[in-house]
Amino acid sequence: MHIKVLRDDLLDGVGPIQAVVETKRSLPILSHLLLETSPSHLSVFGTDLDIGVRKRIPGEVVKEGSVALSARKLYEIVRELPATSVDLIVDDELTATITCDNSEFKIKGLARNDFPSMREPQQSGIVLDRRLFRDMIRRTLFAVSSDQTRYTLNGILFRVTSQDVKMVATDGHRLAMTNHELSGKSESSSTLTPVDAIIPRKAAAETLKLLREEPGEVTIEISDNHLLLHTDDILIDARLIEGQFPNYEQVIPAHAAKEVTVNREAFIAGLRRTSTILGERAVPTTMKLTPGKLLLTCVNLDLGEARERLDVEYQHEEMSVGFNARYILDFLGALTTDQATIRLQDPLSPALFTGKDDARYTCVIMPMRL
Amino acid sequence: MHIKVLRDDLLDGVGPIQAVVETKRSLPILSHLLLETSPSHLSVFGTDLDIGVRKRIPGEVVKEGSVALSARKLYEIVRELPATSVDLIVDDELTATITCDNSEFKIKGLARNDFPSMREPQQSGIVLDRRLFRDMIRRTLFAVSSDQTRYTLNGILFRVTSQDVKMVATDGHRLAMTNHELSGKSESSSTLTPVDAIIPRKAAAETLKLLREEPGEVTIEISDNHLLLHTDDILIDARLIEGQFPNYEQVIPAHAAKEVTVNREAFIAGLRRTSTILGERAVPTTMKLTPGKLLLTCVNLDLGEARERLDVEYQHEEMSVGFNARYILDFLGALTTDQATIRLQDPLSPALFTGKDDARYTCVIMPMRL
Repeated sequence: MHIKVLRDDLLDGVGPIQAVVETKRSLPILSHLLLETSPSHLSVFGTDLDIGVRKRIPGEVVKEGSVALSARKLYEIVRELPATSVDLIVDDELTATITCDNSEFKIKGLARNDFPSMREPQQSGIVLDRRLFRDMIRRTLFAVSSDQTRYTLNGILFRVTSQDVKMVATDGHRLAMTNHELSGKSESSSTLTPVDAIIPRKAAAETLKLLREEPGEVTIEISDNHLLLHTDDILIDARLIEGQFPNYEQVIPAHAAKEVTVNREAFIAGLRRTSTILGERAVPTTMKLTPGKLLLTCVNLDLGEARERLDVEYQHEEMSVGFNARYILDFLGALTTDQATIRLQDPLSPALFTGKDDARYTCVIMPMRL
Repeated sequence: MHIKVLRDDLLDGVGPIQAVVETKRSLPILSHLLLETSPSHLSVFGTDLDIGVRKRIPGEVVKEGSVALSARKLYEIVRELPATSVDLIVDDELTATITCDNSEFKIKGLARNDFPSMREPQQSGIVLDRRLFRDMIRRTLFAVSSDQTRYTLNGILFRVTSQDVKMVATDGHRLAMTNHELSGKSESSSTLTPVDAIIPRKAAAETLKLLREEPGEVTIEISDNHLLLHTDDILIDARLIEGQFPNYEQVIPAHAAKEVTVNREAFIAGLRRTSTILGERAVPTTMKLTPGKLLLTCVNLDLGEARERLDVEYQHEEMSVGFNARYILDFLGALTTDQATIRLQDPLSPALFTGKDDARYTCVIMPMRL
């Protein structure tokens, strides 16, 4: 095998994929990346058996071939190389020689045969805008449960119908839900098979990192309990969580008569400030609503208290309700509108957080008893 | 007590000083910062008993007074405040009320009496350029020993004579030494008392952070085994290490006939690259010198090897010598000249690293057996 690639292209492939690779597994091959040529490019592939990622890098192939090299070492080497052309030659003993400018590295590789195989895309599936798909993950990922005993909650529900695409995650204290209506054109909704899949947290988080925030599309296929995502140059193959996601619709409050509208940035700043007094304690932040005003209060009995006054749109009677500020901040951090709307019924009923005049993103947060 | 200060000024004082404060000590007062007014400013003071730091912040004093507040909480609060005016009011029960824009914090304080006292400067001492003093610390700090059984090596020797100021640190494997000739004017060398002090690692490291990289001077006093450093607005009081620094001059090689001159940046890049193959191993980097050329080689028996070719000025016979690359990188990182000079005698004798044509900074590094 012999290929010439640009160092920056090589780093672009090796960097994100080595982060996916598991180094603690007992199978040594899993700490490696498979480098493989095809006539016009080099493909870099890494997997931890739960998620596999392959990226194509442009290169001038002198001689075709393949080799598996230590992911971490390859990354550390490529990172330090100057930004110029890199020559990668692999001999019959699978020793790779990497030459770049005045530097030369020889590292021992493993054979392609030992490497797990990867599914290939089927040229069909749901086509979504890449940024939209990233945004949907970003809006729900924080609500994924870490409770290992509730494994169907350890991922994001990904549901596709002929009308829309939905993502939902919940940890029992809060639920995040985002949906996107399918217009029917580029997304070929007419030919869509309905999908109901649970994408594990790691696969969702890695996808967020791997799909760049660039214009473009992503094609999504679900089969045999695997999720296959692909763009022009990247292919992600993730094992899905088996089982039934709970019926989340029942926790979405039907009655929530009192509506508050608050500026997103001011709300974030206020919650961050009042939270400083709390430290690690799971103490509620009190929201006291009076017409036109929101007063945030946190009390730490050992230390003192913090208050923040915000101007809001609110026209109902006085009401006090307590929340875990972290949950609200997670929601506000993923919100893309300038104003947030909160719908409340009473201090013990779940509250509905959305963007103002925007039904595409909703969080349900359980209050804390004051 | 009542004072109005700007949030940015307050953060400027609280931020660096809270980093000095020890939070794990049994004495609760040591996790606090003492805030104290004088007619025209607020002083912020923190100490871990080994090093104390006081900083003056401009402010409008409405009522004089003092209070000790939790360093970490105060920092977390001030960091989140908007960049505007802050009101700090302390009542007779030592509850501090911090008001800024729409935010209000009440935190419980402790009395000034409980706080350790700080030495005051005596208006005499050595006056040095602040950046020079920082540079001298930066050039030697990395060579300070971590071996607790050799406690006189756990700091930087600071030696002042009528001719010059010197800093030296060593861990037995390498020695870093920098000196600055006193010109006699701003530094008032005529009235100088000779000084021989060992500044502990933490005090040196904190001083590096606290003294900004700005033009200006620093006054240095040594008395009662304490180092007192002051600038216009900051005062650092550090306990010195007691004992005798070893006679370091005997390890500086008198004979080192072979001279190599190498570009600093290329040398750093080459050493970083060849080191990637090593991982955590204490394996030597081989420097093979031939006229005009330097070949760096690292071998990791499990993985492979790395080579880097550099053009250098060298006119002696071929020679190979091994070093811990980390030690050379530490030296090169603190070097301010474009070219480095290495003087070698033979593969087992200590080597002398300096800036080219610059005798003010020297490292002595012991080779590793190949």
